[in-house]
Formats: sequence, C-alpha cells, structure tokens
Amino acid sequence: MKLVIGNKNYSSWSLRPWLLMQHAGIAFEEIKVRLFTAGFDEAIARYSPAGKVPVLVDGDVTVWDTLSIAEYLAERFPEKQLWPADRAERALARSICAEMHAGFGNLRSQLPMNVTAVLPGRGWNVAVQRDVDRIAAIWSGLRARHAGAGPFLFGAFTIADAYFAPVVSRFATYGIHLPEAAKRYADFILALPAMQAWIADAREERDFLASDEPYRLAPDRADAIVIHH
Amino acid sequence: MKLVIGNKNYSSWSLRPWLLMQHAGIAFEEIKVRLFTAGFDEAIARYSPAGKVPVLVDGDVTVWDTLSIAEYLAERFPEKQLWPADRAERALARSICAEMHAGFGNLRSQLPMNVTAVLPGRGWNVAVQRDVDRIAAIWSGLRARHAGAGPFLFGAFTIADAYFAPVVSRFATYGIHLPEAAKRYADFILALPAMQAWIADAREERDFLASDEPYRLAPDRADAIVIHH
Repeated sequence: MKLVIGNKNYSSWSLRPWLLMQHAGIAFEEIKVRLFTAGFDEAIARYSPAGKVPVLVDGDVTVWDTLSIAEYLAERFPEKQLWPADRAERALARSICAEMHAGFGNLRSQLPMNVTAVLPGRGWNVAVQRDVDRIAAIWSGLRARHAGAGPFLFGAFTIADAYFAPVVSRFATYGIHLPEAAKRYADFILALPAMQAWIADAREERDFLASDEPYRLAPDRADAIVIHH
Repeated sequence: MKLVIGNKNYSSWSLRPWLLMQHAGIAFEEIKVRLFTAGFDEAIARYSPAGKVPVLVDGDVTVWDTLSIAEYLAERFPEKQLWPADRAERALARSICAEMHAGFGNLRSQLPMNVTAVLPGRGWNVAVQRDVDRIAAIWSGLRARHAGAGPFLFGAFTIADAYFAPVVSRFATYGIHLPEAAKRYADFILALPAMQAWIADAREERDFLASDEPYRLAPDRADAIVIHH
C-alpha cells in the first residue's frame, strides 16, 4: 500500500490517514509530494484524478479523500476495528467525522494547520470560538462517556481520533484555550508516538507556503524555500 | 425512521438522503424545518447537536451529515445495495462522494441550489467551469464504463447518484452547458420520479432566503415570505 501525502507541516488532510495507519499498525509506503512546487499537479495526477492529497493506492485500487480512505481501510482491516463495533456508536463516530469533513469553515480558514509554527492568539474571532466550542463539546462528551474504556474518544482508538488530530495541532499552534477535559484529550493525542513522529518530520521540511501563511510575512528559518502559489 | 430536512428549494444537503431513501424505497417520515425562520435553531437542536439539516432519526440512533446517513443506511439495508458490491467500485463511489462532500467550493458558492429559480448564465466564472469539467468527467467516465449495466453512474442506482443530484439541479438552474454524455445523465436524473416529486414540493414553498439568493433582489412570486438571516 502506498499513501501519497503533502507537506507534513501544512497538509491537515494528509495527517488523518497517515496517523490512522501509523497508529493502527497498517504498513504502508509514504510518498510525499511537495505542495504547489513545480511539477506538483503532474505528480499528483499520476495517482488521482481529483488532483489532491491524500491518495491511497492498494494494488489496482485507488482511493482518494480522507473519509473514503478511512472507510476503505476499515473494510480492508476489520481486525483493526477502526470504527466502533456498536451500531449506534459507529453512526455517531461517522457523524462527527463527516461534520469535521465538510464543516468548521471558520476554524479551517482562520487557523490553517501549521505544525511547527507558534502563533498564539492569531486568527481568533467569535466565529472561530463557536467552532472551538462545538469541537470541545464533542470531545468532552465522548470522553465522559467512554472514560472507563480507554483514553480515546470512543475508548479504544478509532478513525474519529485520526480525524480530529489536525484540529489538535491547530489548537496548539494558535494557543487556543480549551476546557479541562478537552485539553486533556488534546494533550494526549499530541503526545502519541505517531503524532510526535509526524511533528518531527514536519520540522525537517523547509517549504514555506505563502498561501498557507496568513500570519507570517517570511519564514523563521534561514534555509526555508518560499513557495508562492 | 424520521428524516429531518430543510427547504426543498434550497437545501442541497437535504436532497441527498431524501432522494436516496425515496428512490431506494426506504420508508421514512419527513420532518421539514424551515431554514433560518424564527425557532429554526431550537427546532433543529431537538434532533441534532450539530444544529444542521439533514438528520436521520432511527429509534434511539441519531445520524447527521449526508455521508454518515448514507453509510448508516447502506449498513441498515444491505439488500438495497446502496454502494456498489465490488470492492474497487465501492472505493471509487465513496471517493467521488467524499470529493463532492468537501470539495467544489467554487461551484457551491457561485451556484447555490435553487430548485425553482431560472438563472441561466448567473454565477459562472472560470473557476466554476473547472469544477463543472471535473464533475462532467466523473459522470462521463462512469457512464461509459457502466453503459451496459443500467442508466446510473455505476449501472444500478447507488448513493453516488443521490450525492450528485443537487449538482444536477444547480446545472439546470444556472443553464450550465455540459458535454453530451454528462448532459444525458443529468437529464435522466432530473426526470426520476423521486426528483420530480422533490421539485414539485419545492414549488409549493414560499420562503425566499435572502442569504441564498445572490442573484435575485426580490422573489418572483407575490405570496413569497422573505427571510433575512
């Protein structure tokens, strides 16, 4: 299996299936395509007609978009129990993932994922706070219900945890204040070995994507490669 | 089962599960909540913590968001074969639905669904055309591959057809020119009894949602109720 991803510093969509497979112990070859560099469109077109990362290639099956990849992996590796086993819990897990998939537009646009940046206070507004409140309510509610079953949203690790991982990263970058239970969950996800591995890889990247940097005029590191898109 | 939906004229998200259930012959009670009217937030909060239509209520299970509802129905009614039976085809069907779910932002914002309006030429720009081209390519490719198996995207009716139904309606409203194969598919979907029933119901609605009407300053019908949001 091959997983085609974008820059680890910026690609929130790539983080989801990568963390899912990494944490669940599903072996894959990582193919990183540097976003918006010369040849990016051609490189990604080799894998997916949608022209976007991430893409999962499993033999002659090509799957794109994070939700579709998640469903595919859940079917392909039933023993990993990537969705909760209970029907109602599974419906709830899918509902919050789908809500994350197409929603939270304010949070997405105001707090773009930027793993290595430190930008406390930037981007915040009341519309962002409504998104933060909804996400914190989802996390707190699920943690209260499944506290005895394990440290993840549904007790054991599921797709839902991978799905919210980019938000955990955004909250850290922008110093978003969270209620206690939500903060504990976010800190726990940030400390996962798979998440720490992703962050370490992001630190090795030198690309500075101007289009994904609404709050920095120039990169912090001297050896950065500035990419205009 | 209860399906909570918004206005049939405007709610593209509601059309998907409604058409899916209606065409597949899955019985449900329709609960319509008039979007953005006084009491809308309270009414929808009774069904879903996400505060958005559509919502599916099946006994004590509540499912929100169109993709999650689709997956739930596919599991609940396996005999309906709502996803293609073949693993690779199913992965493809899920990929294009997920692509539609979170993508095509230009088309979404420029050509909001407005079932009964006639607005040829409005909203079009080159970014919209890129979205139209991609959708037409998806439809044409699938129709060419499954031409012998039936008139839907994967031959037989699947979630993918329900998923693209709002786009079919948008293309009609805004008079979008389509290549021949894509046009044939769009015309076929528009003529489905379930789609015609939805359109007929939309014609009965009087609400004019100012926030969803970037191209009309005032409603065409004299008995309209203008709602500012």
